Amino acid sequence: MTPDEFRKLGHEIVDWIADYRARVGDLPVMSRVAPGSIRAQLPAAPPDSPESFDAVLRDLETVILPGLSHWQHPDFFGYFPSNGELSSVLGDYLSTGLGVLGLSWQSSPALTELEEVTTDWVRQMVGLGAAWSGVIQDTASSSTLVALLCARERASGFSLARGGLQAEDAPLVVYVSSHSHSSVEKAALLAGFGRDNIHVVAADERHAMQPDALALAIEADLAAGRVPCAIVATSGTTTTTAFDPLDRIAAVGRAHGLWLHVDAAMAGSAMILPECRDLWRGVEEADSLVLNAHKWLGVAFDCSLYYVRDPQHLVRVMSTNPSYLQSPVDGQVRNLRDWGIPLGRRFRALKLWCLIREQGVEGLQRRLRRDLANARWLESEVRAEADWRVLAPVALQTLCVRHEPAGLSGDALDRHTLAWAERINCSGEAYLTPAMLDGRWMVRISIGALTTEREHVAALWRRLRAAVVSP
Amino acid sequence: MTPDEFRKLGHEIVDWIADYRARVGDLPVMSRVAPGSIRAQLPAAPPDSPESFDAVLRDLETVILPGLSHWQHPDFFGYFPSNGELSSVLGDYLSTGLGVLGLSWQSSPALTELEEVTTDWVRQMVGLGAAWSGVIQDTASSSTLVALLCARERASGFSLARGGLQAEDAPLVVYVSSHSHSSVEKAALLAGFGRDNIHVVAADERHAMQPDALALAIEADLAAGRVPCAIVATSGTTTTTAFDPLDRIAAVGRAHGLWLHVDAAMAGSAMILPECRDLWRGVEEADSLVLNAHKWLGVAFDCSLYYVRDPQHLVRVMSTNPSYLQSPVDGQVRNLRDWGIPLGRRFRALKLWCLIREQGVEGLQRRLRRDLANARWLESEVRAEADWRVLAPVALQTLCVRHEPAGLSGDALDRHTLAWAERINCSGEAYLTPAMLDGRWMVRISIGALTTEREHVAALWRRLRAAVVSP
Repeated sequence: MTPDEFRKLGHEIVDWIADYRARVGDLPVMSRVAPGSIRAQLPAAPPDSPESFDAVLRDLETVILPGLSHWQHPDFFGYFPSNGELSSVLGDYLSTGLGVLGLSWQSSPALTELEEVTTDWVRQMVGLGAAWSGVIQDTASSSTLVALLCARERASGFSLARGGLQAEDAPLVVYVSSHSHSSVEKAALLAGFGRDNIHVVAADERHAMQPDALALAIEADLAAGRVPCAIVATSGTTTTTAFDPLDRIAAVGRAHGLWLHVDAAMAGSAMILPECRDLWRGVEEADSLVLNAHKWLGVAFDCSLYYVRDPQHLVRVMSTNPSYLQSPVDGQVRNLRDWGIPLGRRFRALKLWCLIREQGVEGLQRRLRRDLANARWLESEVRAEADWRVLAPVALQTLCVRHEPAGLSGDALDRHTLAWAERINCSGEAYLTPAMLDGRWMVRISIGALTTEREHVAALWRRLRAAVVSP
Repeated sequence: MTPDEFRKLGHEIVDWIADYRARVGDLPVMSRVAPGSIRAQLPAAPPDSPESFDAVLRDLETVILPGLSHWQHPDFFGYFPSNGELSSVLGDYLSTGLGVLGLSWQSSPALTELEEVTTDWVRQMVGLGAAWSGVIQDTASSSTLVALLCARERASGFSLARGGLQAEDAPLVVYVSSHSHSSVEKAALLAGFGRDNIHVVAADERHAMQPDALALAIEADLAAGRVPCAIVATSGTTTTTAFDPLDRIAAVGRAHGLWLHVDAAMAGSAMILPECRDLWRGVEEADSLVLNAHKWLGVAFDCSLYYVRDPQHLVRVMSTNPSYLQSPVDGQVRNLRDWGIPLGRRFRALKLWCLIREQGVEGLQRRLRRDLANARWLESEVRAEADWRVLAPVALQTLCVRHEPAGLSGDALDRHTLAWAERINCSGEAYLTPAMLDGRWMVRISIGALTTEREHVAALWRRLRAAVVSP
């Protein structure tokens, strides 16, 4: 495709996306296609000859669009806000169009240095101390894996340089809570710790990790000859947005030299609001932290920010230095390939840069405060309504609710909950995520899509009340 | 940013990228900025108030652009071709603008199903059998890590479900060659095998792994009580594009039940040319394979295709299934979060789809054949010139060359080589990658940027000859 063809088609695609964002609120939020139905509409074999791009755009509208669940929809209350602010989208357009790669500093110096600058901007925005250094990873799953690999190597005295984890005698143990995200267990399993050595610490009635239980678990492991290695604490759990008490957890961990990783993937964005920072008091005691700028904050996916206090250690675990990647300035620069798993690196800092500059810190703060106010409003509405319950503290913008009519309990209540949630999701009018809490199904309402205003939350509340009565 | 503001600025950005692609050949290929100089031009703190997007675009031109090394430049002969064909760029624009995520099939069915279809298109294009299933990862580093994690779990009888790798008695061993990519050793180290258990098999004079040496290494390990686990063979090594003899390696591995992973990250694209497929004869015997569609093939980074013969095994190693990710159709669909490390997933299939449809298989084949012919032409020129040597077989589009004037050898020859390569890179007229081969520096010339025609290769050859004489 020539630059001039790209210019013409690029304008069409920008217009299509602009129209999409303008009309997305009129589309059903959740796709209602049947499994396999998209695949069945596409050719099983690739085309030998070139096709017109118009054909691609036609299929986009008729085949692909009905198969999308719309995360940018104002009535999207599922999972978490995955906001792709349009200024950030433009930053990503620049990145993809430039097509430069950060294999090393030399391979595109601005890519590395803008990443240093913008991750440091976010560090300041969330009130972290100057000792933290940031880098962009794809997702919190990868960031947490990196953290646990670093913890493993610190605790084993760099076993990777010798016989590896498999040569260690006493097993290393990782501590998580019963409310840690699924990616935490996955990371520990992939890092080779084994499920037997992932010790799940009990949570309190607010679903936060209990530091006393953590201390007891560590002591029991030490007594049994195991080696406590790392704690993964969560600032804002997936199910209820519970905050583990970082200060008390850090104190327990410090006494035994454990690595403390903080999973603030979703809720870290809230820390741009000074009034929220008490929720992660003690964070400065951690060794590593992940904050997904591609969630509530508004950077187009993917942009997971991973912060560490000791980048030298990170580099020692992750570094490679083959001759074909060396350059004369290596001693004076950061080579970000040594800050994570992949060698190749997109220019992702551009989308973070465009977002922060176009919104300003104040603009971002204003939007997040709007969402917090909407959550508080909905909480008070639900609490005031007979037969409805709010099941967990509403720390930020996520509510856990259940309709509990008289006479329904146990499995029957579960069936009722899943039925009305499915009814709403299948209606296309709103999208919610059912989840288990304390052994029973309930419904999470995650508020914070870019275009979700009070009117959308109010409409959701009307829909909830209607859904529990209509069959 | 409103959709209408996005429309206006999006057109500007498309125009800027179209202009950039049209003028990139006039820019110096390698950025010549000093370390820290980009950072020094940017504010150390984020802006409180919104800035105009015009200011961003001004900084793009004046601050960022001089700090880029231009991978899409027709005189880019460094590393490998990282082609972002403009049709693929448009596919990525759609993906970022839509802002949908594939946490599960339900969270955007078309995202999953188009990925199934397009990875299968590429499978057919490169002549792999129908038993292979594909998924998109970010990079070959991640794909190879996934492969070695799967190998580890197969060889250990799923140790992750018990005590992990650290509970295994006999160490698992991974076999690589002395020409494996740096990401292979990194993946093995991160997977916990330990450097002592990464056994480097000798290469022959063509830099390909020696199956006999592999067989001996396996037997020695068995005799010593170690457990041979996996072989990573390369189809197209980084330094010289050597092809390990997959058929003979597979035969050795099969006799001992080893996992065979094929790293075809760069050269896999060549297999869309039937005349190249003999180079990876035996590939059907492998367990896993990585092919980076974001290299020579032309998909905008990142789009690493990972193929496996047993997806059930992959899913068993990678799966997570928390309540908040379940949906009523889970039994009937692929949930691609269970096919790799990250949970979040961009709609990357769109850029692959757009590329293949806009180019057609024939268009892609034509471009790759052009590059092969350019490499053969340059090879014959270099071979015909006094004092110049081609140091390795030219299997595809990469040449390893050295200027060896009479009287220069050893370290003095190394200094000469690095000096003239640096002179060319610093001239901004072309970009090359020096690398070590058989203990000495030489220069890799990787041909295959989208806009690199014979005239650019001929100009490079003139520049090479000039650079070795001018001080």
